[in-house]
Parts: sequence; C-alpha cells; structure tokens
Amino acid sequence: MLQGLCNGEPADTLALNDRALHYGDGVFETMHAHAGRVPLLARHLARLQLGCERLGIDVPEQRLLVREITSLAALPEVGVIKLIVSRGGGPRGYRPTPAEPTRLLLAYEASPLAPACYRAGIALAWCKIRLGLNPRLAGIKHLNRLEQVLAQGELSQTGCEEGLMCDADGRLVCATAANVFARFGAVLATPDLSRCGVAGVARQWLLDECPAEFTIEVRDMLPEELEKADEVFLSNSLRGLLPVASVGERRWPVGAAVRALQPRFSALGIGVEAGA
Amino acid sequence: MLQGLCNGEPADTLALNDRALHYGDGVFETMHAHAGRVPLLARHLARLQLGCERLGIDVPEQRLLVREITSLAALPEVGVIKLIVSRGGGPRGYRPTPAEPTRLLLAYEASPLAPACYRAGIALAWCKIRLGLNPRLAGIKHLNRLEQVLAQGELSQTGCEEGLMCDADGRLVCATAANVFARFGAVLATPDLSRCGVAGVARQWLLDECPAEFTIEVRDMLPEELEKADEVFLSNSLRGLLPVASVGERRWPVGAAVRALQPRFSALGIGVEAGA
Repeated sequence: MLQGLCNGEPADTLALNDRALHYGDGVFETMHAHAGRVPLLARHLARLQLGCERLGIDVPEQRLLVREITSLAALPEVGVIKLIVSRGGGPRGYRPTPAEPTRLLLAYEASPLAPACYRAGIALAWCKIRLGLNPRLAGIKHLNRLEQVLAQGELSQTGCEEGLMCDADGRLVCATAANVFARFGAVLATPDLSRCGVAGVARQWLLDECPAEFTIEVRDMLPEELEKADEVFLSNSLRGLLPVASVGERRWPVGAAVRALQPRFSALGIGVEAGA
Repeated sequence: MLQGLCNGEPADTLALNDRALHYGDGVFETMHAHAGRVPLLARHLARLQLGCERLGIDVPEQRLLVREITSLAALPEVGVIKLIVSRGGGPRGYRPTPAEPTRLLLAYEASPLAPACYRAGIALAWCKIRLGLNPRLAGIKHLNRLEQVLAQGELSQTGCEEGLMCDADGRLVCATAANVFARFGAVLATPDLSRCGVAGVARQWLLDECPAEFTIEVRDMLPEELEKADEVFLSNSLRGLLPVASVGERRWPVGAAVRALQPRFSALGIGVEAGA
C-alpha cells in the first residue's frame, strides 16, 4: 500500500470497534487510476451509493469522495485506488446502530497483466465452491467476500489465475473478480445477478454502451450453455476485457466481440488492445 | 471496549492491510467471562479451530489463546471477551496468500438481560431476510455477517430484540445471535446447520449434555412446524437459555424443558435461573 486515508486523514490503521472488521458491514470499490485520472469514476460512485442504500449506511458526500480519490490518483506510482465505506464504529452486537460511516481510501501500485493475456486470452477453471443466494446482497460490492476468497484458494491448485463460479442452484454467475460474457452469434449473454454476484462497473458500461452490432441479453445461464458459446470473455474495471482461451477442457480462439470491444476500454485508459 | 490485544500487545487499532477488514477473512468467538473464569472455553476454542481449518487459516497456539483470554477475564468489570482470528495482512486481492494470522482479543463489560426475560420469556419476530446456503461456510462463526446485521436492522422496527431466520429455501435456521430449540413432548428439535447458520457452543453443549429425560433431534424444520411446538427456547453461550414467549402472533407459556435446563447453564455461570 502506497498511502492510506481514514476519514480524510493519513492513516495506516483502523479502530478496533469498526464494523467492517467485525461483520464486514460495509461496501467497497476498486478503481483504476491512470495518469491522475480515474476511469468510470461516476459509475463506481453510483454503485457505492446503491450498496450503502441497500445496507442502510449513510453515503459519504460525493464531492468529498471525488476530491480524496483524485488527490490519491495524482500521486506518483499509484495505479489502483480502493475505497471502503463501513457503517463505522459501534458497540458489540449485530444491531446496526446509527454511526458515522468510516471512509477509507487506499492507494496501491498497478499490477497489470502481461499483454499476452489480452492478445491470446487466459485459462479459467471451474470453481467448486458455490455462491449462496441472497437477493438483498446481490449485485452490490459488500465486504462479505469469503466465497471469493475460498474460490481463489481452490485456484491456487489449478495454475489458473481466474475461475468461474456457479450459484447454489448450479447457474453460472461470474468469475472470482470479474463478470463473464458469452457470445452466441451477435448476442452477448451475461448472467443475471439479481440473486448473487457483484454487478461490475465494466459490465454495466458494456450493458449501456455496447455498439449496435451486438445485442446484450442478461439472463440465466448453465455451465453447459457457456461451453456452447462462440466466444467467452471477462470484464473488470481494473483490467478491461480479457478473452477466455479455455475453461477446463473447452478451448476458444480469441473472438470478434472482444476484439471489437477492447479498444473501447483502452480508450478509457483501461487494459490493453488486443493488437498491442 | 475495556481493553484490546493485537497479537499479544495492547492495541486499539488494526493494520489497514488486514484481510478481516477487506473480506471478512477470519473467524470469531464471543465468550462469557465471569469472576475470572470463561465458561465453555474449550468448546469455543474447538469451534475456532474448526473454522480456521475450514478457511485454511493457521490456528493460533491453544496455550497462548488460553493465557491471553484468562488474563483479560481477570480484569475488573470484564464480562465478555471477543476473540477474532483473521488470515492476517496481505496484498490486495481475494487470493488467500500465506500470512501470519492476526489474533485480536477484545474485552467488554457484560450487558445482561433483565431477569424477567429468563422468567417470562422474550418476544421474537420472523425476519424477512433469508440466509444464503453455503455448506463450506455453514456452522462456523466466520466474519461475513451482513445477513445477521440486516436481520437485526429489520427488528428495530418490531420492538423485538431477537428474530428467527429462515434459509433461502424457507427452512428455519436460527435466531440472529442464538440457536433455537422446539420441544414436542419429550423431544427437543433443533435445526440442522449443515447448509447455513452458526453452530452455537451452547447448542453443542445441549446436544452433548442433555439430561436423559429429553431426546434431541437435529433436523430440518419449517416455520409452521415450529408454531406447533409445545415450547420454544433459544440458546446462546453469553446468555444461556431463554424461553420464547411469542413468535409473531403465536404465544407459549414458559415450558418444562427450559425450566429443567436453565439451572444447568446457571451452574456454568451463564444466564439466570428461571426462578431468580
């Protein structure tokens, strides 16, 4: 970590009564920072606001957040900024007593993927751990992330950096830290996230800004359907769009959609063009 | 909070790179402390160990934990000790990289219930939020507790201190911070916790030590079955056994099981006898 701010003050620690520590009672955003700019910042702040509202946490003032985020983005070497908003400090017990939210901003160096990942795609594994269903927590980026941690723990035995996760009913949901798209002809299908999963900012950008040559469908999808796709790719607001070269035994060449869409993300300052 | 220890040193803050804060990547125990003693300590440490093993976190040495817990239990005014073990500090990202676990011990004053709660019972509400199913996380007391926080948030509108929670499939699981038992004649039924919920230390004591006049059944139970019970009570290792006077519109008198079992918990130093 290059720099930390807690409620606007330089900090490297958090009070022991904070509810983020005790219950994961808060939300977060992880943002790409590039030459003093933060691509998709408004979308990150919109999702943060949705998450705070869903949990009943007061949303920090937007101008304050923008000022603090952009001040960190201007520091040398900063490539990633993480914002955590917790319900704040409080007495022992689950009850969400009114509190002044805690606002943490953490600046890190970038950890870019090798350009070959963008050009040739990455290998994914299927994760065994399932995502529990909870519509009240679905879509938002809250701090209860043990399912993703355990999924990543499984991957360390496979040699894959990323894996696909299904929900408790066996439907495809997402990768551990990315959303997934499957192309069928001119249709880009991505899982419905109303029961579990994180609705990524890059995914939402695609839903809103996708060029007319593709039609987007948000729908349920089983693993065996994904394996029939013409092309699969991942979206992530730090990494942009990544072709999927394989999931387990199934292999794909880099496809038309990711080649067409990668430059749109590069233009935002995220990721690398397929031809780079 | 009266006193905090982080890895054995007096502390009131936690490092900002700790994975408990970022992902709820850890487990906890909340223990009753009474005149320098900690009832059910061995059971608390056994559950902590199970949780660490399930998450792949190195278990702190038991003698060290016992020494630190009993040192806090001997301090004036201490009534509750909370132990948190997280995977420790680490770089950004879900991947559970090997780390030195963080060991937090927090001492609090007791917050006892009014004796009338033990004599006459407490009123419960049904919580609307459901518990997501995840066998890998079920039973252990991990730090991902947003479902319980949101359930407690619902209760603040009902006037009830506690509420009953069901899983995503509609089966009864537990209260927000207690396990639940329903008596049918001489049978004490308590929900199976292999898909979600926390397997409480007081519940386990009952499963192991229940007097021969009662038979315990661990099984699935629907809300409508609970409502047909002759008696309902809650178990919690801080509060002991609490009669349930009502759940929504359904009312019960204080029953034979809780009257017979409360003195067993009082003898451990937990809770209050029905006649107190």
